[in-house]
Amino acid sequence: MGEDGTVHAELRRNTPDTSDAGTMNDLLCDMVDELRADPAGAGVAAIGVGAAGIVQWPAGRIRWAPNNEYENWDVRGVLETATGLPTVVDNDGNVAGLAEARLGDTRNDDMVLLTVGTGVGAGIVLGGRIYRGPHGLGAEVGHMNVNPDGPLCGCGNYGCLESVASGTALTRMGRSAAAHDPDGAIAGLARADGGEVTGLHVTTAALAGDATARSLFQRLGRALGIGIAGINAIFEFEVVLIGGGLVDAGELLLEPARRAAREFHYGPPEVRPVPPVLPATYKGDAGKIGAGLLALEET
Amino acid sequence: MGEDGTVHAELRRNTPDTSDAGTMNDLLCDMVDELRADPAGAGVAAIGVGAAGIVQWPAGRIRWAPNNEYENWDVRGVLETATGLPTVVDNDGNVAGLAEARLGDTRNDDMVLLTVGTGVGAGIVLGGRIYRGPHGLGAEVGHMNVNPDGPLCGCGNYGCLESVASGTALTRMGRSAAAHDPDGAIAGLARADGGEVTGLHVTTAALAGDATARSLFQRLGRALGIGIAGINAIFEFEVVLIGGGLVDAGELLLEPARRAAREFHYGPPEVRPVPPVLPATYKGDAGKIGAGLLALEET
Repeated sequence: MGEDGTVHAELRRNTPDTSDAGTMNDLLCDMVDELRADPAGAGVAAIGVGAAGIVQWPAGRIRWAPNNEYENWDVRGVLETATGLPTVVDNDGNVAGLAEARLGDTRNDDMVLLTVGTGVGAGIVLGGRIYRGPHGLGAEVGHMNVNPDGPLCGCGNYGCLESVASGTALTRMGRSAAAHDPDGAIAGLARADGGEVTGLHVTTAALAGDATARSLFQRLGRALGIGIAGINAIFEFEVVLIGGGLVDAGELLLEPARRAAREFHYGPPEVRPVPPVLPATYKGDAGKIGAGLLALEET
Repeated sequence: MGEDGTVHAELRRNTPDTSDAGTMNDLLCDMVDELRADPAGAGVAAIGVGAAGIVQWPAGRIRWAPNNEYENWDVRGVLETATGLPTVVDNDGNVAGLAEARLGDTRNDDMVLLTVGTGVGAGIVLGGRIYRGPHGLGAEVGHMNVNPDGPLCGCGNYGCLESVASGTALTRMGRSAAAHDPDGAIAGLARADGGEVTGLHVTTAALAGDATARSLFQRLGRALGIGIAGINAIFEFEVVLIGGGLVDAGELLLEPARRAAREFHYGPPEVRPVPPVLPATYKGDAGKIGAGLLALEET
């Protein structure tokens, strides 16, 4: 990737079923070798990694990830030794936020990106710098509690923002709706796919106008907006960006989020402005571009 | 006040019933004159003000305060013109946090002070500096939403941390308890005082061992701890301090807060440590000392 965010070469691999550190090391090193063998990947100067989970900064060690087997994995050390290239490793939400802050359509020095996908990731940019906390363990907005009586979250707590405003929440709500209405659109789409309801079925049904699916997005968007109001009480953002897979639903997600962020905003809006809630520019590419940018800025 | 926080001269005035800017200007200027006329107040070099409400930084203008009449009040301009002394004006939570960060028993560069009094104020210190947001409008942790179905808050929203974890919440819960049990200890203490139940009656009853009053502190402390867990997901604090009037209840408040902060903490504690929840050092004096410190540091 170049300084302007242009991607020169790209390679994708799925996470293997066994995601221990040894398997993942081999996979990453093979990918780097393959990219460097490609003429478009020649002259690569540095490696940037954006990884899900709790990543220690600047050590580049993934301490823990709710959905993977590796623990305390020294990604930076492994890649620097294997490739001889300077490497930075950061949380995927952080680097995605950096991409939007530097190169997005609404680039801004004081902003947050919330990535609403399987979970809710976040990248907080304050005064032009990623906010990580002194050891890189902060900015986990998705795990801020928004209702102690809320659903179980993947992290083990109840009522995290992620538990009510993520793709996982959409899947859970979609399954419940399908169980209550087996003849409805959501259940029908899942049946046609020969499997269980996923968030994607809910999105498809909502975009096609199904009232039940739309009401689930109202519910999810409102929960997201309440979370946004919470961080807006603490920070002074100029813009709140929503990325991740669920932003494909567009206004179905953004409109209720915007409304709740305004409803629960602290202080008169003419004194404490309500930042606009907008779709992110890079969607699924933000992590890749931000990791590249971070490598260019920090190595 | 000297650099070590020693208070050389002190003067207290109650907020008048009419708290418009003109009345308050006269009151403040009279207080400064009186202090400067006192031999102990001679040689004063700067003025520091800690004020409730949304204070624009560094302009020193109180934009809005939920419980006062003044609005868009240029406190810094008025005091500098009237006294000829350099003046700083900041939110009372912010300056109290500064006092604890610099001079408290657990002085630390990455910490938060939550002042649990009538409302819930906050002072966030990151890397040794007060976090205010770019224009001083941030750090309003008390107005982070912790339950959208929660009680009405003084700010007009429902379910702010302040609405469930403040003296106002304790008063509300105490009145409800007294209405349900007119022969109970809480109702009895209010009757002996010849008035309505206040948070202080609940505290007195709890300290005397009344089970109902203690259960209200369990409830309030737990709500506070859930809010603490929320900010601990976002920041990496080394210590969380609790100040304000309600900390006089000691472990009745702190123990359930500590327990909930641990229960709702994001990530394994050995990876993301749970910061200790401790009583603040300065209690009611933190605002005064912090405002003085800020004046010494920033003018």
